Amino acid sequence: MATVVRKIDQLRESIAPFMAFFSGPFSRLNGNPDVANFAVGNPQDFPMPAYVDSLREHLEPRRRDWFAYKDSEPKSQVTVARGLSKRTGMEWDPADVAMTNGGFAALAVAMRALVEPGDEVIFLSPPWFFYEFMILAADAVPVRLHLAPPAFEPDLEAIAAAITPRTRAIIFNSPHNPSGRVYPLETLQALGRTLTEASERIGHPVFLVSDEPYNRIIFDGGTFHSPAEAYPHTVITYSYGKQLLAPGQRIGYLTVPPTMPDREAFRETVFVSQLATGYAFPNALLQHAIEDLEKLSIDIAAMQRRRDRLVTALREIGYQTTMPEGSFYVMARAPIADDVAFTDLLAKQRVLVLPGSVVEVPGWFRISLTATDEMVERGIPGFAAAYAEASA
Amino acid sequence: MATVVRKIDQLRESIAPFMAFFSGPFSRLNGNPDVANFAVGNPQDFPMPAYVDSLREHLEPRRRDWFAYKDSEPKSQVTVARGLSKRTGMEWDPADVAMTNGGFAALAVAMRALVEPGDEVIFLSPPWFFYEFMILAADAVPVRLHLAPPAFEPDLEAIAAAITPRTRAIIFNSPHNPSGRVYPLETLQALGRTLTEASERIGHPVFLVSDEPYNRIIFDGGTFHSPAEAYPHTVITYSYGKQLLAPGQRIGYLTVPPTMPDREAFRETVFVSQLATGYAFPNALLQHAIEDLEKLSIDIAAMQRRRDRLVTALREIGYQTTMPEGSFYVMARAPIADDVAFTDLLAKQRVLVLPGSVVEVPGWFRISLTATDEMVERGIPGFAAAYAEASA
Repeated sequence: MATVVRKIDQLRESIAPFMAFFSGPFSRLNGNPDVANFAVGNPQDFPMPAYVDSLREHLEPRRRDWFAYKDSEPKSQVTVARGLSKRTGMEWDPADVAMTNGGFAALAVAMRALVEPGDEVIFLSPPWFFYEFMILAADAVPVRLHLAPPAFEPDLEAIAAAITPRTRAIIFNSPHNPSGRVYPLETLQALGRTLTEASERIGHPVFLVSDEPYNRIIFDGGTFHSPAEAYPHTVITYSYGKQLLAPGQRIGYLTVPPTMPDREAFRETVFVSQLATGYAFPNALLQHAIEDLEKLSIDIAAMQRRRDRLVTALREIGYQTTMPEGSFYVMARAPIADDVAFTDLLAKQRVLVLPGSVVEVPGWFRISLTATDEMVERGIPGFAAAYAEASA
Repeated sequence: MATVVRKIDQLRESIAPFMAFFSGPFSRLNGNPDVANFAVGNPQDFPMPAYVDSLREHLEPRRRDWFAYKDSEPKSQVTVARGLSKRTGMEWDPADVAMTNGGFAALAVAMRALVEPGDEVIFLSPPWFFYEFMILAADAVPVRLHLAPPAFEPDLEAIAAAITPRTRAIIFNSPHNPSGRVYPLETLQALGRTLTEASERIGHPVFLVSDEPYNRIIFDGGTFHSPAEAYPHTVITYSYGKQLLAPGQRIGYLTVPPTMPDREAFRETVFVSQLATGYAFPNALLQHAIEDLEKLSIDIAAMQRRRDRLVTALREIGYQTTMPEGSFYVMARAPIADDVAFTDLLAKQRVLVLPGSVVEVPGWFRISLTATDEMVERGIPGFAAAYAEASA
């Protein structure tokens, strides 16, 4: 038998660098208490007490159907729509909110709802681990465009040129993982104009899938704008896993703005897609707690101080780094071309980071600010020692 | 735009009777306190206190990574494998247990892991609401065979005849929803022989997807046997939603027996399929509590008494009914041919049941034993009045 299904081989191939890292260095070092762990956006400290308190409170059954089948519960839809209305200034319709078991599921549902086999979906590199994978999983054709470091600015002419009559969607990610860019409204408006023109040219709308799990992780008092504010054919995917730093819990949503044409029909398409994605709804308990979840957040100011401490120290050592405007991540340039070899040097110093080649930025590596302050202090001499060893 | 994706139309069509019932009579009457609610396998009473206690206990973080990313946690795999070993007498390998966010997700993952576009998948009618839907969602071709009421016995010759070189799998369900049949080991062995012969004939294995969410809901001191005991190419899908009567919580699994050839390769296929199904893993809290979840069960003896009370009363009224050996469901024959019209008569009596035509048994209706004893007593005069009205 070996592999039953050819598609699985294709999917496995597209995440081979991810699997190599996670089954290799990550699984050897993750969870080890003497390792300064900057590998992924995972909690390195205890959960927020207010988060646990809320789940404890909402665990107590108030009605007989407390743990009965749930899909997108009206309370969840209203809570999410209220937050989006406040943040975007648009009057969000609760009926357009589809609650999902995480942002990964929201993306899977979006792909299923939007693409036909053979459709092209554009994604921007460096991407999240699974964009190409999710496009392939939906039997669509991934089209990769590049965001050039260190600015990671989208090239609108390249996007326009890449749109063909088979293009169905583009996945856009702000705050951007891994660069930390938060794109200003002007950029989103220009992107919207590009997509509107291209849609007119090809005779059908190009959907913008706006993957925004980090949209509450914004530094320096900045403001996040969603592409939904600038382009009606936008499908937002969101995960509460970042804001709550509880990615093992699995709640998120997919939604469209009130400006989207034919959104009533799209709702039913999304519902059917959620069923087809193995009942991709969050569980009862998490939905009961949604009003608290929407309000709670990790300490962004503390994360910003950690960013400042780390970026300053790394630059003093000699590293070239980004200065993220949002997201969990700092990118730093390896002092040698081979980022995997360099992250091995860091691992010898008990510092665990993500090699840039796993996210299509060879020569760089990614640092997650979800590490503790103590890990930052412990890690800095390790970053210095590895730099010295590589430069020797 | 209307519907963007053609596939969605096909999927929607396959669940049209389900959607008509749930957006119609069900949504009008469900949750209404004066309705005797026998419609679906949903709790009509408060959750088990022991279930809530376990989740409360496991909500308290014991480690920093309590709510970090989880896939199939080793503790979950060991707990499930231990239970399966005990119940099947086989030495189950924990590595072959893939934890999923419910049985629906387990089925979606199984389809993705097993079928190529255009492959045929056999299912037996009356089916669960979503078998045909899940087959179509995997771009496979559904092949419907019939289980004739009232015995609902599989026709092995018909199964053999339906297997072609394009056949990849058959979905089998015991305890059977909606008939309540629990198939004895001899039947499963005969089915195994049929599938083995057919696999040899067509030159590749026909997988048996054994959907067994009700395998702990067994009456009269009977014993459940899994097809995995009789046929090596079996993929079990399970949901804890029935055993715990908490279907809104979403935990289940997919697993294969230690006899399955090439199961090491199949593990990786399943893992990739879970990622592609939108990260189809259960959340952290439910996995922390798995040792309790595996042990806990609703009161089967009480459900059996409810079955006896209801079946006796219905037969006295004049209904033809099944006598389920397991599952949540009793099937009863409507006294008129049009089961939807008859369930409307029952609804007028404040009795909510599932029309048989929603599950491909026209002329019958399905009664869920998850109703309370009080609903049973309140419902019996309603069943009598509707019967009298229809027979008048």
